[in-house]
Amino acid sequence: MQLTSFTDFGLRALMYLAMLPPGELTSITVVTEKYGVSRNHMVKIIHRMSQAGYVEAVRGKNGGIRLGKPAASIVIGEVIRALEPLHLVNCGEDNCHITPACRLKDALANAMQAFLAEMDNHTLHDLVAGNNSLHRLLIPVRPA
Amino acid sequence: MQLTSFTDFGLRALMYLAMLPPGELTSITVVTEKYGVSRNHMVKIIHRMSQAGYVEAVRGKNGGIRLGKPAASIVIGEVIRALEPLHLVNCGEDNCHITPACRLKDALANAMQAFLAEMDNHTLHDLVAGNNSLHRLLIPVRPA
Repeated sequence: MQLTSFTDFGLRALMYLAMLPPGELTSITVVTEKYGVSRNHMVKIIHRMSQAGYVEAVRGKNGGIRLGKPAASIVIGEVIRALEPLHLVNCGEDNCHITPACRLKDALANAMQAFLAEMDNHTLHDLVAGNNSLHRLLIPVRPA
Repeated sequence: MQLTSFTDFGLRALMYLAMLPPGELTSITVVTEKYGVSRNHMVKIIHRMSQAGYVEAVRGKNGGIRLGKPAASIVIGEVIRALEPLHLVNCGEDNCHITPACRLKDALANAMQAFLAEMDNHTLHDLVAGNNSLHRLLIPVRPA
């Protein structure tokens, strides 16, 4: 039971963007290098997060990417709903003939809701605010 | 975010065993055929569930497998803990350099606990008791 790397790196990318000064642009290449993920994979992740409003992509020569809204209004449970396939098992009569009578699928659906409700208690702001250790790991010290 | 097929078929196997008359033996081959999974995969699943006490394997010519304890004392959350890798993301500094400062991993761990706590509300008995539709799908009608 793992998050897909799509969601995993999506959340990591958001944490990086939230660490930048408000409004500052960065590039997909920089985010890619922060986490050692393939650029192609990150392009797809950023595209999806842009569609969902979590990332703003600014076109043009001086363009780049940044958070699409304030970190305090980005709820982590919502991000997971937007990025992650949430079917814990492959139900449906084509995959499992007991589906119509299966109470396990209902129990799993309730447990998934409990999982997401817990993640709804956290915003992107909560993950990064005052997190100096994270800042040191993600943002290089700039010359004065 | 999916359960592994190991856990998925483990839970399905337990539901089948719980549908049989108490104490009745069946075989891994029969369970395999019920769900269209490879016999090799099911052998490993049954072996793990036997180690965990959920399945009893009776050796010998008239041997077979059956539930290792009453269905009412098999808690689904516990079965998932026994069968499923529960690390939602690959943390650890070898995999992700922000691990020491990452609050996301703590949020995910709490959400996983919420998921398991919800699954702890269900026993194997709850999934099968009075479930005539499931019985019809799993147990063939025997001649009178």
